[in-house]
Amino acid sequence: MNAYQELEAIFVKLSHLEHADAILNWDEATMMPIGGGHARSEALATLCQVRHDMLTSTKVLDLLSEAEFSPPKDSWQSANLKNMSRQYHFESALPAKLKSEITLTTLQTSQLWRQLRAENDWDNFAPQLAKVVDLTIEAATIQGEKLNLDVYDVLIDHFSPGMNQVVIDPVFTALREHLPPLIQEVMQRQATVNLTEIEGKYPIERQQALGIEVMKLIGFDFNHGRLDISHHPFCGGVPQDVRLTTRYDENDFISSLMGICHETGHAMYERQLPKSWSSQPVGKAMGMTIHESQSLLIEMQTCRSDEFIEYLSTQIPKFFEGSDTLNYEVLLQNYRVVRPGLIRVDADEVTYPMHVIMRYEIEKSLINKSISVSDLPEIWQNYMKEFLGIDIGLNYKDGVMQDVHWPSGAFGYFPAYTLGALFAAQQFEVMTQQHPKLLAQLRKGDFTEVMSWLGHKIHQKGSIFNTPELIFNATGKPLSIGPFMAHVRARYLN
Amino acid sequence: MNAYQELEAIFVKLSHLEHADAILNWDEATMMPIGGGHARSEALATLCQVRHDMLTSTKVLDLLSEAEFSPPKDSWQSANLKNMSRQYHFESALPAKLKSEITLTTLQTSQLWRQLRAENDWDNFAPQLAKVVDLTIEAATIQGEKLNLDVYDVLIDHFSPGMNQVVIDPVFTALREHLPPLIQEVMQRQATVNLTEIEGKYPIERQQALGIEVMKLIGFDFNHGRLDISHHPFCGGVPQDVRLTTRYDENDFISSLMGICHETGHAMYERQLPKSWSSQPVGKAMGMTIHESQSLLIEMQTCRSDEFIEYLSTQIPKFFEGSDTLNYEVLLQNYRVVRPGLIRVDADEVTYPMHVIMRYEIEKSLINKSISVSDLPEIWQNYMKEFLGIDIGLNYKDGVMQDVHWPSGAFGYFPAYTLGALFAAQQFEVMTQQHPKLLAQLRKGDFTEVMSWLGHKIHQKGSIFNTPELIFNATGKPLSIGPFMAHVRARYLN
Repeated sequence: MNAYQELEAIFVKLSHLEHADAILNWDEATMMPIGGGHARSEALATLCQVRHDMLTSTKVLDLLSEAEFSPPKDSWQSANLKNMSRQYHFESALPAKLKSEITLTTLQTSQLWRQLRAENDWDNFAPQLAKVVDLTIEAATIQGEKLNLDVYDVLIDHFSPGMNQVVIDPVFTALREHLPPLIQEVMQRQATVNLTEIEGKYPIERQQALGIEVMKLIGFDFNHGRLDISHHPFCGGVPQDVRLTTRYDENDFISSLMGICHETGHAMYERQLPKSWSSQPVGKAMGMTIHESQSLLIEMQTCRSDEFIEYLSTQIPKFFEGSDTLNYEVLLQNYRVVRPGLIRVDADEVTYPMHVIMRYEIEKSLINKSISVSDLPEIWQNYMKEFLGIDIGLNYKDGVMQDVHWPSGAFGYFPAYTLGALFAAQQFEVMTQQHPKLLAQLRKGDFTEVMSWLGHKIHQKGSIFNTPELIFNATGKPLSIGPFMAHVRARYLN
Repeated sequence: MNAYQELEAIFVKLSHLEHADAILNWDEATMMPIGGGHARSEALATLCQVRHDMLTSTKVLDLLSEAEFSPPKDSWQSANLKNMSRQYHFESALPAKLKSEITLTTLQTSQLWRQLRAENDWDNFAPQLAKVVDLTIEAATIQGEKLNLDVYDVLIDHFSPGMNQVVIDPVFTALREHLPPLIQEVMQRQATVNLTEIEGKYPIERQQALGIEVMKLIGFDFNHGRLDISHHPFCGGVPQDVRLTTRYDENDFISSLMGICHETGHAMYERQLPKSWSSQPVGKAMGMTIHESQSLLIEMQTCRSDEFIEYLSTQIPKFFEGSDTLNYEVLLQNYRVVRPGLIRVDADEVTYPMHVIMRYEIEKSLINKSISVSDLPEIWQNYMKEFLGIDIGLNYKDGVMQDVHWPSGAFGYFPAYTLGALFAAQQFEVMTQQHPKLLAQLRKGDFTEVMSWLGHKIHQKGSIFNTPELIFNATGKPLSIGPFMAHVRARYLN
């Protein structure tokens, strides 16, 4: 075995340990009784440390140096080597003790968050969150010095390789300028329309059956995955066994249904990654911006399209008795409501970016220490007023405490949602130009063409390109707000 | 940190990796879609190898030598050190090549067994089983030489530390002599009674609700565990998060209910282990003989007692509509049926030991090479005739091929079932002598006293004593067949 091959063998093992980690995390969110939480955090922390030790051994460093001296000629192997090196340097920058302290603290804080959020208890949550922020800054500072990156860019790059503030700032600045007047315009338009609210009870098991039906339409294979319930919907597991979750509300099936579509977009990306590279870094998904672009392409661009909602309107009566009043027009109207609100995950696609931009700006200030955790409620209050015209008062639960990201240490993740939304619009624009019949297919509930395009342009590329490269290669253009703004105008102002 | 403390730190990590392994195995049996199987076995194999490497490192050997040179004075620490050493020597005795050959062969043979058993195909199964026997003998011979143990004793000791043929032989010889005439006597007695069969449909979700109710009575804390469904019932997970499984049959709730009681007995042992030692070898359960004694104490001694069945008869109507005919007498009659049969796992408590003794005698002869795998069908045929009066003919499926133990290499496990049954009777005899009101409490569904006795005498002892020591300390006597025979006579011949 040459050095590169030896590295591959080590990364196979790392991939197996990631499998363990993924399933244990899924179990924690879906199955684990609360009393198992402490032992689970400890087990996950050790697993994390074992991976850390395996990845950052001097043997790996020696092998990397040797392999990089005469890199493999095959483009996949060579990209794989680059990804290995990236992982090594990100991971080895941190002392093992700091790394496991972060794992333990973020797991404890996420568990605490679940409880304290329910109690709207900011005062007890803040000091714990401050610990997470401090540890995050400490770690990112060390990594930034070693990798020659700005501290916040370290965090962004961690979730969206190749992305940084220089790319994001102008895009978000443009959105911050153009979106608020558009939101006003849409709201004025919708104020003149009487919304037919969807009423009635929709039993959970029927909602689940409908969700499963739609997942199958999109292409999900239940021989290689599951759909379960968790507090916060997510897509976890491994490509061979994808674990989707959602949450149901008996009074409101339409948001749960789109939540399932969203997670299925994530799932299809995992399922269509290049199988022969599944245990290697180059075979994994290219970060969260691309991942969110896949979930949002499926949810926002295809499943919420006029065409697919027309198809849905023919299916819904099969699942809910006496739902004949739920015709195409009523569904469409309900899926088109734009209404500024407190909760990011409940936001419509038009106001959603404002939730992200405020988090991006807050994170940036937290990480460069120009604000501190204790300032957050007031800052949140101000942003909500300025961006969405909402007075949040002392509602921390639906304000600064609403997201799991910060308690779990996922600073730098939020931008991916809006970058993903922009890229989803950009992909769909190109896809429909190349396949003029695609919308007609969606009207029949047929996702074959969509999945084939995504497979070729995105999924099967694994991590051979970084985020901006993949965006450019798939659509022929760098990321811009153009297609997204055009999409929103076409959908909400036509 | 001294050497002993360093060892403790390493065993904390090993315990965390065991946590991962336990939950992943539970997931595989209860949640995993079939398509995830291949990736899961690879992940589990790597996890196993990581644990092996961590346990058998030269560092552990050095620390053991150093710690044993000046062992800790505290009795728990000193017992912990002995357990560490035992684990190290068992695991490190085998050459890596032999170890991985065993892993591979037993995996292949278990998979083949599932298929060939369904086809009743002994001829193709036998040569593969012979490979497992040969490898088992080779490995146990090496371990026996290093640990100074007889070859078959190595296998017994692996599952039931401290147990060996010198202890088991006289006990099983006595059972072999006294049990068959007693079975005849019970059967003659029962032949004169008309059994009222339990008919009707018992919805799964109601069976589950009843099972959960009984688990709570016994003392199971659903904040620290779950009840789910799997093909083969088991008790998995970790002490802080015990994962029980069962299987349901709509036509037969009484066996599923006792299956749940059985697994809850295992679960309570795990739950009541000494918490301050939970991550150390001395804090784990003392092998399979003691574990089976706990499940059988709860199932056979308490839950199947006249008193608890009387209590059950008052509860059952709350769970199943129109089940008024299920009165105390009918339930008792159905829970008292003694009927020799082909299948060990379906056997009643009176005939069960005969299934175990024949396997014990066969294993012993296989391991000392006085018989070979090709002799097994004829030997099986003879045992079934002699022990249970059954002519099995060419039914290998429900004969020599019925258990997963041998194809998976688990020789030496079977005795634990019957040793556990004997010890359960011995515990219950002492317990009821010490607490005369205990049976009256069971009549009210009250397990407080039972759990308190077990907690003090068994559970909280962890692995500080080996199997025979624990038996003696808990009951003041070495293991004997007396209490079991008295129990069976009292229950079936009074």
